[in-house]
Amino acid sequence: MANPVLVEVTRGDLVESRHRGMVVAVDGDGKVMFSQGEIDAVVFPRSACKAMQGLPLVESGAADAHGFGNRELALACSSHNGEPAHARLAATMLAAAGVDESVLECGAHWSFEQPVLIGQARQLDHPTALHNNCSGKHAGFICAACHTGKDLEGYVRYEHPVQAEIRGIMENLTGSALATENCGTDGCSIPTYAVPLKNLAHGFAKMATGAGLAPERAKASRRLIAACMAEPFYVAGTKRACTRLMETAPGRIFAKTGAEGVFCAAIPEKGIAIALKCEDGTTRAAESMVAATLARFFTEEPDLHAALMAQANRSMSNWNGIHVGDVRVTDAFAA
Amino acid sequence: MANPVLVEVTRGDLVESRHRGMVVAVDGDGKVMFSQGEIDAVVFPRSACKAMQGLPLVESGAADAHGFGNRELALACSSHNGEPAHARLAATMLAAAGVDESVLECGAHWSFEQPVLIGQARQLDHPTALHNNCSGKHAGFICAACHTGKDLEGYVRYEHPVQAEIRGIMENLTGSALATENCGTDGCSIPTYAVPLKNLAHGFAKMATGAGLAPERAKASRRLIAACMAEPFYVAGTKRACTRLMETAPGRIFAKTGAEGVFCAAIPEKGIAIALKCEDGTTRAAESMVAATLARFFTEEPDLHAALMAQANRSMSNWNGIHVGDVRVTDAFAA
Repeated sequence: MANPVLVEVTRGDLVESRHRGMVVAVDGDGKVMFSQGEIDAVVFPRSACKAMQGLPLVESGAADAHGFGNRELALACSSHNGEPAHARLAATMLAAAGVDESVLECGAHWSFEQPVLIGQARQLDHPTALHNNCSGKHAGFICAACHTGKDLEGYVRYEHPVQAEIRGIMENLTGSALATENCGTDGCSIPTYAVPLKNLAHGFAKMATGAGLAPERAKASRRLIAACMAEPFYVAGTKRACTRLMETAPGRIFAKTGAEGVFCAAIPEKGIAIALKCEDGTTRAAESMVAATLARFFTEEPDLHAALMAQANRSMSNWNGIHVGDVRVTDAFAA
Repeated sequence: MANPVLVEVTRGDLVESRHRGMVVAVDGDGKVMFSQGEIDAVVFPRSACKAMQGLPLVESGAADAHGFGNRELALACSSHNGEPAHARLAATMLAAAGVDESVLECGAHWSFEQPVLIGQARQLDHPTALHNNCSGKHAGFICAACHTGKDLEGYVRYEHPVQAEIRGIMENLTGSALATENCGTDGCSIPTYAVPLKNLAHGFAKMATGAGLAPERAKASRRLIAACMAEPFYVAGTKRACTRLMETAPGRIFAKTGAEGVFCAAIPEKGIAIALKCEDGTTRAAESMVAATLARFFTEEPDLHAALMAQANRSMSNWNGIHVGDVRVTDAFAA
């Protein structure tokens, strides 16, 4: 059975393209509060689960030992733009652990954001691993590993203790068994594990509420999510959807994108979390889906609801600034 | 009824994302030789129909008056990368008509191709209309308009004689009525008309074979398609799918992409043409679909068939060059 069309892209009076997908919102007990599509299908969370992967940095005591605040913790959970402030802070985190960018195993790439890329092209011969969107996450891995006396070499590999620890954390949070069968390699070379979409949402609901978690993990989870909400620029960057969503309701909404059309989000005060995937992997659609799903939980706050729906339904203009169409969510998100 | 999944994107041993779509191949009489999905659904051809929009340049006599060769005609049918050679040739075409880039109404944008964009960022303060991927098409419009004494002002508008002429040509080729109801505005501000996918394919089959066309139009159509096949770099550019497909079988395959996952192609020697759309508008999938559809018509030439299938099924590597997955077509394309 096909997943439903959740987002349409219009041109003139017609629908030009359609995006299907699956979305689920659950509470801390895993109860489904809203869903569309095949929510038991397995998805690779990709970068949407970086806050889960950031737990060793806090739980190990490394974050406290280095006096890391919200910015460093947010960067450890980020897919950043590679803006100068992002690259600088990643370098600072590595320096706190007594190492430098030469230990990063994430690879290097130019920024995905055109204005940032243009700035980089004018100032750099080539990007470094510090500009990789995952450099903050990797810096977090490295700080935790150094603090607990782990050898760094090959820290991105499935069998390395760094990844084994993360695997255990993600099994605890998602309630899914993770092994080589459901493992792929992510853009930054670490393992990424396919889990049922509903379990991914439940993992974030546990992080947001502490439900069913050991006290230390519950505390570390709340701290990471609070750090992201407090410093949304360090989770993504200028003009990015994660940053904008979190700025829309400061301290109340957590949101994190992943490659191939994944988005996770949480509303801690309401005790719910969201996971979704656009079937075809398209970011523009996943951004509309997450905004519309979040909006469903704020119907009693018209201004906030409208601000979120304005991110779900967006106007598209051409090179001359002429309105040519819209990206809009379908009735699947109606209350 | 949902369109079938035509392309899968894998990671590790799992399918991570899926692309649905519709594809049709027809002969000069409009007989369907292969199809998948809803081929009577209307689609905006976007830039995939630029060869149709290039006909006034030839039919008006402007191309001959200015001594334009294959490169100029290919550029008039192009969505180019904005590489220096593309921008220079667009300027040369405008100069032949006695005007300059100030008359272009397409707007300006940085190249969509990262390596080209990096070069532009290092050499330009900002891109000009000559760098717009549509500048060659607009230069063609302008040369034809100047040659036939049309006023240039507002040549991108629906009611302008330039667009009225193109509308008539496209009605003749596609056998579809074009009017404001099925009209949208394209990225470069000209009208784009939604037509049934099958009719779009038939229009290109008429161009490739001359079937049912007036002799002058049949001749101009063959000349434009031959020019694109002779100068594929000027139709797209470095590392682009259109260019690579046409280089795979020099003089035998015509291929042209359009925004939002459209692709048109023709094999003149076999008298067939192809039109397809990825439902969700994704280029990576449309590129796989067109290569696999073309390959179906070359099963008796194993090397060419393999070269096309190598463009349909592509390996994906991450920032460290590690193989992470593949883009591959589904059994829908099996012989």
